[in-house]
Amino acid sequence: MAIRLAVVGLGKIAQDQHLPAIAASADFELVCAASLQGESPRGHTYRAVDAMFAAEPSIEAVSLCQPPQVRFEAARAALLAGKHVLLEKPPGATLSEVVALTELAQEKGLTLFAAWHSRHAPAVTPACHWLEGKTIRSATITWREDVRIWHPGQKWIWQPGGLGVFDPGINALSIATKILPPFHLTEGILSYPSNQAAPIAADLRFATFDGVPVIADFDFRQTGPQTWDIRVETEEGVLLLSKGGSEMRIDGVAQSLPHEAEYPSLYARFAELIAAGESEVDVRPLRHVADAFLRAGHVEVEAFVEEEPGRQTVPA
Amino acid sequence: MAIRLAVVGLGKIAQDQHLPAIAASADFELVCAASLQGESPRGHTYRAVDAMFAAEPSIEAVSLCQPPQVRFEAARAALLAGKHVLLEKPPGATLSEVVALTELAQEKGLTLFAAWHSRHAPAVTPACHWLEGKTIRSATITWREDVRIWHPGQKWIWQPGGLGVFDPGINALSIATKILPPFHLTEGILSYPSNQAAPIAADLRFATFDGVPVIADFDFRQTGPQTWDIRVETEEGVLLLSKGGSEMRIDGVAQSLPHEAEYPSLYARFAELIAAGESEVDVRPLRHVADAFLRAGHVEVEAFVEEEPGRQTVPA
Repeated sequence: MAIRLAVVGLGKIAQDQHLPAIAASADFELVCAASLQGESPRGHTYRAVDAMFAAEPSIEAVSLCQPPQVRFEAARAALLAGKHVLLEKPPGATLSEVVALTELAQEKGLTLFAAWHSRHAPAVTPACHWLEGKTIRSATITWREDVRIWHPGQKWIWQPGGLGVFDPGINALSIATKILPPFHLTEGILSYPSNQAAPIAADLRFATFDGVPVIADFDFRQTGPQTWDIRVETEEGVLLLSKGGSEMRIDGVAQSLPHEAEYPSLYARFAELIAAGESEVDVRPLRHVADAFLRAGHVEVEAFVEEEPGRQTVPA
Repeated sequence: MAIRLAVVGLGKIAQDQHLPAIAASADFELVCAASLQGESPRGHTYRAVDAMFAAEPSIEAVSLCQPPQVRFEAARAALLAGKHVLLEKPPGATLSEVVALTELAQEKGLTLFAAWHSRHAPAVTPACHWLEGKTIRSATITWREDVRIWHPGQKWIWQPGGLGVFDPGINALSIATKILPPFHLTEGILSYPSNQAAPIAADLRFATFDGVPVIADFDFRQTGPQTWDIRVETEEGVLLLSKGGSEMRIDGVAQSLPHEAEYPSLYARFAELIAAGESEVDVRPLRHVADAFLRAGHVEVEAFVEEEPGRQTVPA
């Protein structure tokens, strides 16, 4: 029997990834959705989570795909209503709320799954295997994308708690925390546009416990070719993950990998956790982001306006 | 036998609190110190931690009293050298480094004590007892002090990782996390002086899991009377902790309390933990601060210069 699922928040990530993955999954059946905007491809679309739970008691699980600033209340309501919960990344707007939800899920015997989709990229598990037992000299994370292409109209990303460039950067950190030994921030600089409440770029220096450098360069201002690379230098050779973990090279040689299936793999994992009666909440990627906000210096940079100036110009 | 202790960082807090508490303690014996400046009242003063550990193998425990930005390396060196460690508050400049130290202490079978001195204020335990079983309606934290009086010349407090007004504010949070049910930040504003890298004030709104409001007002710009109050409204009456937890009133009636002995009590607890072979690391106060940096908005306020303008004016 498929698990009866509702989606909350029919924004870009739900449309692009969640709905297709759910439609293709034998483990889940979409029952309905709750969203301020948009329409569910199946069942009714509620405008409030509480109304949805009241009207559709057969829902067994929910996927929360809204911006992080409003996710806690929906997660709390879902757990109190006895539903299993998948949290899109980042799992919350604060660490403390994620800890509180984790405790509630445990108390209620429900599954809470803090999903890190990038960990399900094709190269991540092979990279873990290749790095096993090797001596790492350094790691460099370069995550540079054009915010206008990948986050069109997502105003929440620039608001407090929206994380700015850490919204993609946390994907890199979710992979790095999976494949590298533990590391912690030692210094950094966050670049804030003069008109925005979240950073557009971050230069971060981490170190492993033994002092191995882990450098991260996150930038939302990349035009032209986009870069989502993690390069790990070891005494035994160089590992390069590129395109967000969908390609992998060892000493320059491309490795054969399974096809990309991040979200189908996430949902398979969610079903597995529900069947096992377990939760999976790894806060480390979000903790690194919180540490960066706590520890790094700030610089002010050029204002960011989503519409390029040229487009707004009225011809003379 | 007294535990052979070294102090690292002979700054203001070591001079004002640690050294007198150690001198008065039967549990500890000061062996020496390591500090860039100042002289230990007993034994040699080393200028580097590694040199101290090499020269004085009999040291059993260390108290780390330096600014948080440089504490990790000393804590790591101490644990690797087999010493028990007391961390002044905040326990680190990032959450991840505190977690890493906790894991190392556990691996080595050593005591790591993340000390929150304000939890040892006279009213804290009585407040816990009084609140037990009562229904809380709201809590208000007001922590307003004059930075020029309490942090003279402490430039590190304004640097990234120095926490600004959260340096005292985290004391309030250490009490609040002890006496109140779990809460998390829902919104806030941090006020940054135009010339400083850390906030001079913070207005924070937290909520307990059940939505009970916990409001915090931290300000470094208080002149005249200073305020370090936590007020808890319950259905059964009003609890007021004032003067940083050294006074307590219930419905306006002053309660009789033991004498102030925060640091002697800290050292008694450190000795107890060492004897029991246990660690005590509660990261919640620092997690709330990290959450505030992660989640709150920023506003720019008047520049802060430690010397008052009047003093620098050359008479005409």
